[in-house]
Amino acid sequence: MTTMQSPVRNGVDTATLFATLDAVKGTPEIAKFQFRATNTWVSGTHNRSTINGFYGAMQEMTHTQPTTLDADHPAVLVGGDHGPTPVEYVLHALAACLTAGLANIAAARGVNLTSVSSTVTGDIDLQGILGLSKDVRNGFEGIKVSFKLEGDDPEKLRQVVEQSRQRSAVFDIVTNGVPVSIEVDAG
Amino acid sequence: MTTMQSPVRNGVDTATLFATLDAVKGTPEIAKFQFRATNTWVSGTHNRSTINGFYGAMQEMTHTQPTTLDADHPAVLVGGDHGPTPVEYVLHALAACLTAGLANIAAARGVNLTSVSSTVTGDIDLQGILGLSKDVRNGFEGIKVSFKLEGDDPEKLRQVVEQSRQRSAVFDIVTNGVPVSIEVDAG
Repeated sequence: MTTMQSPVRNGVDTATLFATLDAVKGTPEIAKFQFRATNTWVSGTHNRSTINGFYGAMQEMTHTQPTTLDADHPAVLVGGDHGPTPVEYVLHALAACLTAGLANIAAARGVNLTSVSSTVTGDIDLQGILGLSKDVRNGFEGIKVSFKLEGDDPEKLRQVVEQSRQRSAVFDIVTNGVPVSIEVDAG
Repeated sequence: MTTMQSPVRNGVDTATLFATLDAVKGTPEIAKFQFRATNTWVSGTHNRSTINGFYGAMQEMTHTQPTTLDADHPAVLVGGDHGPTPVEYVLHALAACLTAGLANIAAARGVNLTSVSSTVTGDIDLQGILGLSKDVRNGFEGIKVSFKLEGDDPEKLRQVVEQSRQRSAVFDIVTNGVPVSIEVDAG
């Protein structure tokens, strides 16, 4: 009797990863996903989202459990500070996407990671959203991501980060923008 | 003896909101903020961010408490599903920013809200991030936000949503893009 071991590297099941790639190559429809968040206003700048259901692989699916996320403005911005600000969630999303990607890419390339950490900073001049200057945009002027990685050969690690940047959904969204439509049912 | 009551509408302390606007008009430096997230890889596509410190109003500040956020890919995308995907956090950020803004704007205009909810959906073809098609982008092809509001006159409510869109930091980031720089310390 032989024991088959799935080739897991960096916590990534590479056999399943490659099988998924092959499945999508054969049936591109599998790759069409729709992600969703539902948000409810609580009071003032405090509101809460729930994330659970999504569509993908040609079926409705749910996460193993729903996640609720509170957002608010801090006291200095006249909020109740019941959670991170919306823009901080964008910084988290960017770090999370790049990090998930580089773990996958490293595994696919046979590159071992021992630790990955990052700090993401976003500079914003609130004169924009406060409507006090037409020369100031509403969003971040710029975002900086600083990665610290340990594992195999440093040059390979740098190449993995670069490939993750080139294949990151959130990096693309944040740097290139996405069309957003807004519908309003006001009763 | 008279009791002074702060004019609170929609849970927004409008007196403090207007005082903050006046303060920024007098000293624009107050409006320069830097928000931050630090992220640590856990295993595979699972990673965790902490959000706490930020710079603003000419000083280092912290939230009343740090927030930790787990991100992962679902099982269908070869992850452990230990939290929402990075792109779902972007949808939450967008809903949260528009909702916080409209509560503030409604309060400033003397418009009462009784309820606000929204659903945000983002369509994505994963052939992009999987590197299987050069014609497919990595990020969302499009995002739809559907608001349901109750409160004062429907036309005023619609105008408040429109003004929130025009003054939203995350709407600007997601629709117009932001320059992102990435530094790597690979040891």
